[in-house]
Amino acid sequence: MGDTTLDRRRFLEALGAAGGSAAVYAAATALGLAPKPAAAGPLELKPGGGRRVAILGAGVAGLTAAYELGRAGYDCTVLEAAARPGGRNLTVRGGDVVDEIGARQVCAFDDRPDLYLNAGPARIPADHVQLLGYCRAFGVPLEIFVNENRNAWVQDDAAFNGRPVRARQYRADVRGFLAELLAKSVDPAALDVPLSADDAERLFELFTAYGDLAGDGRYRGSARAGYARGGVVSAGVVRSPAALLELLRTDHWREYMHWGEVAEQAAPMMQPVGGMDRIIDAFMARVGERVALRSPVREIRLRGGGVDVVHGAPGGGARTLSADYCLNSIPMHLAARLDHNFPARYARALAAPPHGELFKIGFQMRRRFWEDERIYGGISWTNQDITQIWYPPHGIHGDKGIVVGAYAFEDTGARLTRLSTAERLETAIRQAEKVHPDYRGFVENGVSVAWARMPHLEGCPVLWTDALRAAHFETLQRPAGRHYLVGDQVSHLPGWQEGAVASAHHAIRGVDARERAG
Amino acid sequence: MGDTTLDRRRFLEALGAAGGSAAVYAAATALGLAPKPAAAGPLELKPGGGRRVAILGAGVAGLTAAYELGRAGYDCTVLEAAARPGGRNLTVRGGDVVDEIGARQVCAFDDRPDLYLNAGPARIPADHVQLLGYCRAFGVPLEIFVNENRNAWVQDDAAFNGRPVRARQYRADVRGFLAELLAKSVDPAALDVPLSADDAERLFELFTAYGDLAGDGRYRGSARAGYARGGVVSAGVVRSPAALLELLRTDHWREYMHWGEVAEQAAPMMQPVGGMDRIIDAFMARVGERVALRSPVREIRLRGGGVDVVHGAPGGGARTLSADYCLNSIPMHLAARLDHNFPARYARALAAPPHGELFKIGFQMRRRFWEDERIYGGISWTNQDITQIWYPPHGIHGDKGIVVGAYAFEDTGARLTRLSTAERLETAIRQAEKVHPDYRGFVENGVSVAWARMPHLEGCPVLWTDALRAAHFETLQRPAGRHYLVGDQVSHLPGWQEGAVASAHHAIRGVDARERAG
Repeated sequence: MGDTTLDRRRFLEALGAAGGSAAVYAAATALGLAPKPAAAGPLELKPGGGRRVAILGAGVAGLTAAYELGRAGYDCTVLEAAARPGGRNLTVRGGDVVDEIGARQVCAFDDRPDLYLNAGPARIPADHVQLLGYCRAFGVPLEIFVNENRNAWVQDDAAFNGRPVRARQYRADVRGFLAELLAKSVDPAALDVPLSADDAERLFELFTAYGDLAGDGRYRGSARAGYARGGVVSAGVVRSPAALLELLRTDHWREYMHWGEVAEQAAPMMQPVGGMDRIIDAFMARVGERVALRSPVREIRLRGGGVDVVHGAPGGGARTLSADYCLNSIPMHLAARLDHNFPARYARALAAPPHGELFKIGFQMRRRFWEDERIYGGISWTNQDITQIWYPPHGIHGDKGIVVGAYAFEDTGARLTRLSTAERLETAIRQAEKVHPDYRGFVENGVSVAWARMPHLEGCPVLWTDALRAAHFETLQRPAGRHYLVGDQVSHLPGWQEGAVASAHHAIRGVDARERAG
Repeated sequence: MGDTTLDRRRFLEALGAAGGSAAVYAAATALGLAPKPAAAGPLELKPGGGRRVAILGAGVAGLTAAYELGRAGYDCTVLEAAARPGGRNLTVRGGDVVDEIGARQVCAFDDRPDLYLNAGPARIPADHVQLLGYCRAFGVPLEIFVNENRNAWVQDDAAFNGRPVRARQYRADVRGFLAELLAKSVDPAALDVPLSADDAERLFELFTAYGDLAGDGRYRGSARAGYARGGVVSAGVVRSPAALLELLRTDHWREYMHWGEVAEQAAPMMQPVGGMDRIIDAFMARVGERVALRSPVREIRLRGGGVDVVHGAPGGGARTLSADYCLNSIPMHLAARLDHNFPARYARALAAPPHGELFKIGFQMRRRFWEDERIYGGISWTNQDITQIWYPPHGIHGDKGIVVGAYAFEDTGARLTRLSTAERLETAIRQAEKVHPDYRGFVENGVSVAWARMPHLEGCPVLWTDALRAAHFETLQRPAGRHYLVGDQVSHLPGWQEGAVASAHHAIRGVDARERAG
């Protein structure tokens, strides 16, 4: 099944499969067709017998490690530099201080359970079974999150005179044009495959259904785009399609149009009721007594049979934690700058990948104006720096709501990060006015989080390239002595909590294997 | 903008628009680009001064009429044949009796607020602003409903040896193949349009992004389909695409693959927390004292200046309600069979359209097994009679849940309707086993609702064809004397509550106009 080109061989294989040959079942299995539960299995560890483990960082990876190793009888201490646990799992509520390096904000949201900004992770895909396993085991209530909304807006300065178009119109028109091009351009006889007359007819029916084409194979607009008028009491009048060239000149089709197709972004997604840090709360209820806050790590010393970690303590001064193992979730570029005696190759790997400048703003809105525009949850996209506007999926028809007024990364995140906190809000309002002209009038207050300027983190996420992965990933995924790097940074899902959980599990299994080996 | 073919003229128009000609703003407006609140306006009626209104049927249309006319000072009486209000807005819970003609079931669901079957309407699109307006005004709590789930299954006996495939795999592979065909077949020079080199390049980049094609324009599988393995701790391995011919031989692409594109089905949708009949409860809290249950209508007599309605009453015997106006939501084919003196053309119109045999089953499942398959809400599709399997979007990670085990209409609904209630459940389990092999073991109990066999309704929805609409719709949308037909049946949204609300508003405006005219 490895040959996936549209050539004769594949079609013949397909015909064979359709005919029920002996290869069918094997093929079906290779295709992953068999329903297969993917629940997170509990980690079954050899009892740790009081072995001491130093866990650096009380984010999702660190707390996972403390929970699992603690259950198995390891003696865990979690050292957290900040005054709060959670790391980038940060839910900002009214009264919270966002203490960026060189900038301090106090969040002015009203004190209500539905008014919060998930400044870090904000949605959980259904395939993130390790994280969801903890949500289930800990009883963290989840609700559906809306990632894709066909009534949300697509705005691009390069097209439609800079005016926003509804996502449903943009999508329906792109599909319609693509299907029309297919119906016009594809010649079944030229396909170099034994396409039967019946199959060729089905192919053209597929084009028609795909694009909602008229009987003559032309795209003349579709109810999918939303009616220009009518549709309830009077008959619906289909709107004229946008011009293909206009659609082509937007950037939306490069990536974000396909957001709902992407593995980690496809519907449905979920969020904890009341804020993403409900997950941190649930971990802390189980391992909180093991977590030492305000305890920044200063030095990591590998030694025979263990690791010594020198850290500050709330009362001042330095202490040394002598551990049998160390699981370290400190962002690798910061870990590289500590006093340490890591092997040179390991140290080079830690310092190699750059880090992103992910950036978010939360605005408290005095009115859920987006619901007047028939938007309930989801994301509007713009090619301005703010990139995204998120509408809350909860609190429907309430009086207020928190809108994510910017969610940017790469260059756009970097530009917003460099602004003062006041300039960020003003910029975000000004850019959002191209999507919602009356936006400014609804803003009550706002708060921004620039992860590159957050203490002890200084970036999000780690930016692996193929070349960097090839050079350094394996080095970092293996222990250096008894020191294990953990966190989403050393997973294939940087920026996702599932990566943090899975990397912790990976390290724990490594520790367990060592203990079993004696 | 009416010319929507891919010809020279449209491209030139597009270029003109991109250049900022005077026509741009008009074009943008015609495209509906301007954000435009679509909130439901309140009906502002001339005071009714105690005019008597007979409202027939306490479904969504009847209750809307009673609420609006009552507020304006009309003296409304709602005659409802059944023992409960709501009509097809029916939420079945433990202990409820489903009293089909010739078949009686008692629902055995556990008595818990999250365990219910919305046997009629079950989801509200964001564009149904009239209905949502009442939800907002009445404080009916709403939550997000999942209509589309990329982890749900697509099962077709004609392909993949009858085994289910994940929707995400099906979709990604269809997109990939279509995009590959486009990349291979489309010759920009042959397009008969002035496509610049830059635009031609963008077009091919669009194909690539659309289908997640490899650099050479081939589709070799995509992470969008879900990885065969890995993706978190180890690198993700893309699965081989399904064979195009296999995909082509399913029926899924004919309609249901595009469900999320359809105007009324696009994400996000919503449901009232606790059951769709929370909307009925909210109306009844406001107009309940005006509703006479167990009061079937027997005769409708138009007369000068009013309408007389003869109806049964709970105590037995017949009574006559003499009204200035009658708003009638009785299903038209049943209304046609009453004693009446409608004009011949009106009576013929009432009797003309056939009615569908919409059918649903709800199964109480002892375990939320679908969550083990990474399915949270949404719909699996099969070309067997049950057509759909719905998973609840609420109660995530709880211990039980109600699955919609069949949601069928047209031929499939008719076939299931004809079965005994026990045979229906057995058939639905047997068919679902092709999607979920262990399904039967999870079923605790089930209940079915065949709308064609429900008393006082005998079908759902009305099946308008273009020809029937041309012949009869306008006749029925206009009053016969002072008798107004209402309900989703006389809207362009049959089967949707929004159609019921809007038709009631339409009739009320007609009454109001008459009263204003004196």
